[in-house]
Amino acid sequence: MPPAPTPTRLSELASELGRQVRGDGSFRVAGLAPLESAGPHDLSFVRSADHASAAAASGAGAFVAPDGVDCGARPVIVSPQPALDFARVAERLFPRPVPPRGAHPQALVAPDAKLDSTASIGAGAVVGAGVRVGARTVVHANATLYPDVEVGADCEIHAGVVLREGTRVGDRVRLHPGVVIGGDGFGYVSDEHGELYKVPQVGRVVIEDDVEIGANTTVDRATLAETRIRRGAKIDNLVQVAHNCDIGEGAVVVGQTGLSGGTVIGRRAALMAQVGSAGHLRVGDGAFVGARAGLHKDVADGARVWGSPQMEERAWHRSVAALARLPDALRRLRAVERALGLRREKPTPGSDGAESDGES
Amino acid sequence: MPPAPTPTRLSELASELGRQVRGDGSFRVAGLAPLESAGPHDLSFVRSADHASAAAASGAGAFVAPDGVDCGARPVIVSPQPALDFARVAERLFPRPVPPRGAHPQALVAPDAKLDSTASIGAGAVVGAGVRVGARTVVHANATLYPDVEVGADCEIHAGVVLREGTRVGDRVRLHPGVVIGGDGFGYVSDEHGELYKVPQVGRVVIEDDVEIGANTTVDRATLAETRIRRGAKIDNLVQVAHNCDIGEGAVVVGQTGLSGGTVIGRRAALMAQVGSAGHLRVGDGAFVGARAGLHKDVADGARVWGSPQMEERAWHRSVAALARLPDALRRLRAVERALGLRREKPTPGSDGAESDGES
Amino acid sequence: MPPAPTPTRLSELASELGRQVRGDGSFRVAGLAPLESAGPHDLSFVRSADHASAAAASGAGAFVAPDGVDCGARPVIVSPQPALDFARVAERLFPRPVPPRGAHPQALVAPDAKLDSTASIGAGAVVGAGVRVGARTVVHANATLYPDVEVGADCEIHAGVVLREGTRVGDRVRLHPGVVIGGDGFGYVSDEHGELYKVPQVGRVVIEDDVEIGANTTVDRATLAETRIRRGAKIDNLVQVAHNCDIGEGAVVVGQTGLSGGTVIGRRAALMAQVGSAGHLRVGDGAFVGARAGLHKDVADGARVWGSPQMEERAWHRSVAALARLPDALRRLRAVERALGLRREKPTPGSDGAESDGES
Repeated sequence: MPPAPTPTRLSELASELGRQVRGDGSFRVAGLAPLESAGPHDLSFVRSADHASAAAASGAGAFVAPDGVDCGARPVIVSPQPALDFARVAERLFPRPVPPRGAHPQALVAPDAKLDSTASIGAGAVVGAGVRVGARTVVHANATLYPDVEVGADCEIHAGVVLREGTRVGDRVRLHPGVVIGGDGFGYVSDEHGELYKVPQVGRVVIEDDVEIGANTTVDRATLAETRIRRGAKIDNLVQVAHNCDIGEGAVVVGQTGLSGGTVIGRRAALMAQVGSAGHLRVGDGAFVGARAGLHKDVADGARVWGSPQMEERAWHRSVAALARLPDALRRLRAVERALGLRREKPTPGSDGAESDGES
Repeated sequence: MPPAPTPTRLSELASELGRQVRGDGSFRVAGLAPLESAGPHDLSFVRSADHASAAAASGAGAFVAPDGVDCGARPVIVSPQPALDFARVAERLFPRPVPPRGAHPQALVAPDAKLDSTASIGAGAVVGAGVRVGARTVVHANATLYPDVEVGADCEIHAGVVLREGTRVGDRVRLHPGVVIGGDGFGYVSDEHGELYKVPQVGRVVIEDDVEIGANTTVDRATLAETRIRRGAKIDNLVQVAHNCDIGEGAVVVGQTGLSGGTVIGRRAALMAQVGSAGHLRVGDGAFVGARAGLHKDVADGARVWGSPQMEERAWHRSVAALARLPDALRRLRAVERALGLRREKPTPGSDGAESDGES
Repeated sequence: MPPAPTPTRLSELASELGRQVRGDGSFRVAGLAPLESAGPHDLSFVRSADHASAAAASGAGAFVAPDGVDCGARPVIVSPQPALDFARVAERLFPRPVPPRGAHPQALVAPDAKLDSTASIGAGAVVGAGVRVGARTVVHANATLYPDVEVGADCEIHAGVVLREGTRVGDRVRLHPGVVIGGDGFGYVSDEHGELYKVPQVGRVVIEDDVEIGANTTVDRATLAETRIRRGAKIDNLVQVAHNCDIGEGAVVVGQTGLSGGTVIGRRAALMAQVGSAGHLRVGDGAFVGARAGLHKDVADGARVWGSPQMEERAWHRSVAALARLPDALRRLRAVERALGLRREKPTPGSDGAESDGES
């Protein structure tokens, strides 16, 4: 795991987490690894007692584990939330590289841009007129901030990101490489000659605090008002968020999902990968949308839906199971029809009967 | 709605549109908004008489509306095409920012590139050898034009766009951030050892006049000849157009759709979001392909298809409805078989019978 | 086909391929084209005897064709592998443009980066601290290599590519414009307040020799260890490869496919376009996954699957055919029920009966 962290005593990590060590606190953590690949110098973690046998079989030198899980003779940071504490250890051992403060000599910054003195602007990054960048925010190489963009504090704007004019970004926002914020929405009306006439997209995008957006995802500006990504929402790679969408607080949108114009995603809703949503519908608070679902109508608060077109989770499971039995059911239906004299022909010898159905 | 436009008299806007005002033409339009969120200083629009009650309930100060729609005491620009005229007003009130003419001192322009004196090249943009850029075209920051690219007049090439060598772009073309034109097509043949051998992609991409292409969309160069996007076609974000495709005049391709190699899209055809098309097929003139459809064969001129694999629209509606009834139909089929003595077992009490079917 | 190659004698091309010419070897090849559009100065190719009539009808001046295929009076390079030899001719006639060696004066290279003297770094490209770039590798304009990236020999890194810190790239790798390698994986745990807490993504991406990755594709870094793209794998445009995936040697992944975290793709497996895979599953060596399939469980070595959820190929064909017959089957089921007295109502005259089923 590159780069190797500075080996750190288990007791020191536990103390920072506010947890206790069971066993030898002087163990030095030289790496982090999952149970199945961890070696004797690695720290690993055990999600729950269900994974006790995997822990016993693991080659890890130490663990973060819930109270009562037997990890053999090896030392354990005892934690009610092992995954969370393990993530905190990772953050502690592998701190993000912090580039030097200030604008790189080869950054291209407009004279009237207002950069906090602790912000960092990378080589080849372009910062337009009237832009504001907050404290400790890092704008990486070759990112482009159009005029009148505002970015808060402690953000990370990666290479190749494009923020179109007027975009607003809160604090602690992470935009991964190639993200495009504020591109024109896709809207046309027919003119007198039946040609497509572009509807000007004059709104903007507002990204609230603690949002993270994955590589090459696109979020279009609103036609008139705002496209808004609310506090703490997490969006994966290659997602399309069309004009006038509103993504709720703490919502999760997984890779390659596409939201048509005006879609509203509720608080802490979760959309799995490759979902598609028709425009102007609402996914309720806490709703769950299974991978590859196609939404054509609202999803109620807390509902769980799958499939395309969407179905309630249980109905979808039944539908998938029924579909698998359908070829057999068609054969049985033909047998019934023959038994009733509703069908004359016999199955061709050697055929499974399915192909003959087209003639019925 | 940022930035606030200069308030403008309703009569002045109407006069520019060639329309009449009903009511107080001295009303000053300070913003634009949809009916449901418009305030007393905003202009809104009413698509048709069907929206009359929404207009009556709206807080807008003025409207663009068809003749005969009652908008209360508020002034109206009377228009046979309210959405079109509203778009024109938006364009009038929110003109695109026009960057200064000429190459930014930090643009990277090859000595033999031919830039019209009215073109604008942004900071960090790279313009390769032999490139031509037409009148009033704007190449934004950090865009990259490989050698021998030609771009016409009045185009907007946004930040992060990449035009590979030899690409041809017509007039009034808009390429949104992160668009890649002319990347290699995806083609391999097996060599003597069964390894994949790259088929050189030596064709190019031609983009005709009035085309618009959304953020992070990719259009691959042809293997030998041309990939062509014809006049007035509109392509949304994150669309994949493979080598040798031919997109027809005025066609519309919505977000995250993918077209395999050699797909031909007819004049004014429309492909909704997340469609996929197998290679070497043709979607006819004026055809409509519903969201998430999967095309494996041609679509006739004017046809409407949905589903994956595609079905004619009415057949698809019937198929979706039938699928929803399938679990119930399987239960009824079992009842029929029992009535005929074709089936021995009884449904387990408390079961809905569906799960027992696996044993039949 | 731009740019026009230097006309070259057929005999010279044949000799370089180690093949024989049948007919006039002095024919000069001035262009390359498929059978249907080739003209009298073009070389075309005939895949097999099945295409003999297309060859006869073609306007091509010469062919690469298997022994025994009649191409009229025109000269032929006789080849047991016409497509492969035609690709080799294309490579010979249209050599890739080779930019000048060394760093462009407007490239932005860290002082301690180690560039081979034959490497080429384009204008606006950013090469971070500690980066290594191998012999004859071309890094195009506006690409960004974060610190501690290593790229081997004979690679082509196109404009706008972003390689995050620590990425390893082998030899002869092609990364098309807008590719993002090493973006953070998408992983969160719930903290004490139920908020999403980011799991640090501290692993990296390793890309082995002879890999090619298409425009705007994203490959995320591993949470702890490595995301690995093995030797000779080919990935198309707009594909999402999540953290900890492992793509096998010579595997093919077609456009807009998405692989969730920890997916393992076997040697020479092929995933067609728009496939989605749930996390932590394995697609076997030599397996084939049809376009738009949705994988929720492993695919065996050599298996062929389609559909969403996936089915074995033959079962899927049967399922698709059965689904098309379903509306008719429901009507027949009602007829059976009426014949047995299990159903009272009659079909409404003028109705096709399908809609009445909802009441049953």
